[in-house]
Amino acid sequence: MRFATLHDGTPDGRLHLVSRDNLRCIPTEGVQTLQQLIESWDALAPSLEEQYAALNASEEGPDFTAAPVMAPMPRAWQWLDGSAYDSHGDLMQKVFNHDPNPKGRPLMYQGLSDRFYGPLCDIPLPREEDGIDFEGEFGVIVDAVPMGSTAAEARAHIRLLVQINDWSLRAVAPVEMKTGFGWIHAKPACSMAPVAVTPDELGAAWRDARVDLPLAVDLNGAEFGRAEGYPMSYGFDELLAHAACTRDLVAGTVLGSGTVSNENFREIGSSCMAERRAIELLDEGAPRTPFLSFGDRVRMECRLRDGGALFGAIDQKVVKGGRA
Amino acid sequence: MRFATLHDGTPDGRLHLVSRDNLRCIPTEGVQTLQQLIESWDALAPSLEEQYAALNASEEGPDFTAAPVMAPMPRAWQWLDGSAYDSHGDLMQKVFNHDPNPKGRPLMYQGLSDRFYGPLCDIPLPREEDGIDFEGEFGVIVDAVPMGSTAAEARAHIRLLVQINDWSLRAVAPVEMKTGFGWIHAKPACSMAPVAVTPDELGAAWRDARVDLPLAVDLNGAEFGRAEGYPMSYGFDELLAHAACTRDLVAGTVLGSGTVSNENFREIGSSCMAERRAIELLDEGAPRTPFLSFGDRVRMECRLRDGGALFGAIDQKVVKGGRA
Repeated sequence: MRFATLHDGTPDGRLHLVSRDNLRCIPTEGVQTLQQLIESWDALAPSLEEQYAALNASEEGPDFTAAPVMAPMPRAWQWLDGSAYDSHGDLMQKVFNHDPNPKGRPLMYQGLSDRFYGPLCDIPLPREEDGIDFEGEFGVIVDAVPMGSTAAEARAHIRLLVQINDWSLRAVAPVEMKTGFGWIHAKPACSMAPVAVTPDELGAAWRDARVDLPLAVDLNGAEFGRAEGYPMSYGFDELLAHAACTRDLVAGTVLGSGTVSNENFREIGSSCMAERRAIELLDEGAPRTPFLSFGDRVRMECRLRDGGALFGAIDQKVVKGGRA
Repeated sequence: MRFATLHDGTPDGRLHLVSRDNLRCIPTEGVQTLQQLIESWDALAPSLEEQYAALNASEEGPDFTAAPVMAPMPRAWQWLDGSAYDSHGDLMQKVFNHDPNPKGRPLMYQGLSDRFYGPLCDIPLPREEDGIDFEGEFGVIVDAVPMGSTAAEARAHIRLLVQINDWSLRAVAPVEMKTGFGWIHAKPACSMAPVAVTPDELGAAWRDARVDLPLAVDLNGAEFGRAEGYPMSYGFDELLAHAACTRDLVAGTVLGSGTVSNENFREIGSSCMAERRAIELLDEGAPRTPFLSFGDRVRMECRLRDGGALFGAIDQKVVKGGRA
């Protein structure tokens, strides 16, 4: 199944089913919001599957392509973000001289979850000097995961996959990392691509609890990165088990992969500017790619291998926010 | 005004007004939950003030003392916790050899907010070996604070004061601090005392955006700490302005002070075990106070100087949680 949330004047919006070609959508019957669906997935999913089949069988239905989309989950009770691509982590460690993370322990942080920006709105940030960057990621949305769940147990709670841009303020990050308290300002609210999909929509590309598909990242219309989603050092199942080792994960928890990155980043590019700048520093002695300026546009999209639409695109402009 | 939330089978519970002596309570008219109240404070407060005056004028009304209390805010869209008592921060820095925090920059972390435990329920944690500790704190609940607000502007958004126990897992903390990603497992869900109060309930003890009252912390019935709330290096107004410098703070954001601590901790005790253990390490060469065991009880209460009830008491037992 594929889901989107459309603006209806409420903070959580109105949940819709989206056809498999991402062209049409209809309001979900029997449930208003994605949070409600996640809280009662087993009870609600069967009739939604029927509604989804009927939508795909018909060639009629309201247009989705110009619908007023929010993030599929416009706000969540918890957002946890990992850093599961070793090619990214190892590079950052080397360049910034961070301590190596203990083997067997995934990196993860507790992020802001009171809003996920929709895929097309402007992104308000206060200062260009903060080093505005993007991070293309994949994520999962789970129903309730009990404390102490194993990776196999946690995997059964993965209900939806999403595509995320984790906006980052790089000039603030080292200051906050040094405190040991972790990131607040370095991690503003994230954006979500318009369509959340059940894992079966990926077919064989949902493999070992990883998204085995490329993420296309473009900056101001130019190709920036085409990294593959598969090479995570921990699958989403393992990341969830780690997250749940001291707590029950509330239904609707969103958990991210961290910046998608591959070992051959010099050929296929990166999903964030910090990684490209680190490569430039190593190869050319100094970073040459500037962080974002107000007015810059970032586009991210992951499609199926056959070109079929999947999560839809994030396509946004960074703008000056806050007081003048 | 004083507010409590009672169990009614829903996750957000049912908001009540509590009489000034904390003995009686009535359901709030015109609003069901604290989150709803915070989102429309200016519109709802005047009639609630009338209802509160009538409750205090009467000597009748349902008993509050045995009511099924939840946290006044059973879950929040954001929980940010500071570390605003220098006597605590300086001691921890000295003992654990942390880098000093830059002057003029408050310490703060993004915490788990999908649940705040009520004041009397058992606290499930997975392992005693994680170094189970408590942290007695004060906190504020704000309505929407725009990005870039000054301290004076932010102060006007402080609607309620609360008393918090920020449960902590000390064995995990240094591992997570070293990553730079900050705390997840080191900071499980917090507890809240039963009554959230408007600042005017403190009279002159709400001073410079600080709670000028002592916090009584007891462990298994024995006095553990009696630290004063006033000596914060940053007031809640300044902490809020810091938090809002890169983001709008969503209505219902809870912001904490960090462990209440005073320079004379050797005389008046501490609001967490880590601080007492650090003092023992300095004075006696080794920490002697063990962290909590399952079955241990922690009680925290802040009263007015005249002995009058204020937030009510947190009184809880730590128990084994998760899979057997």
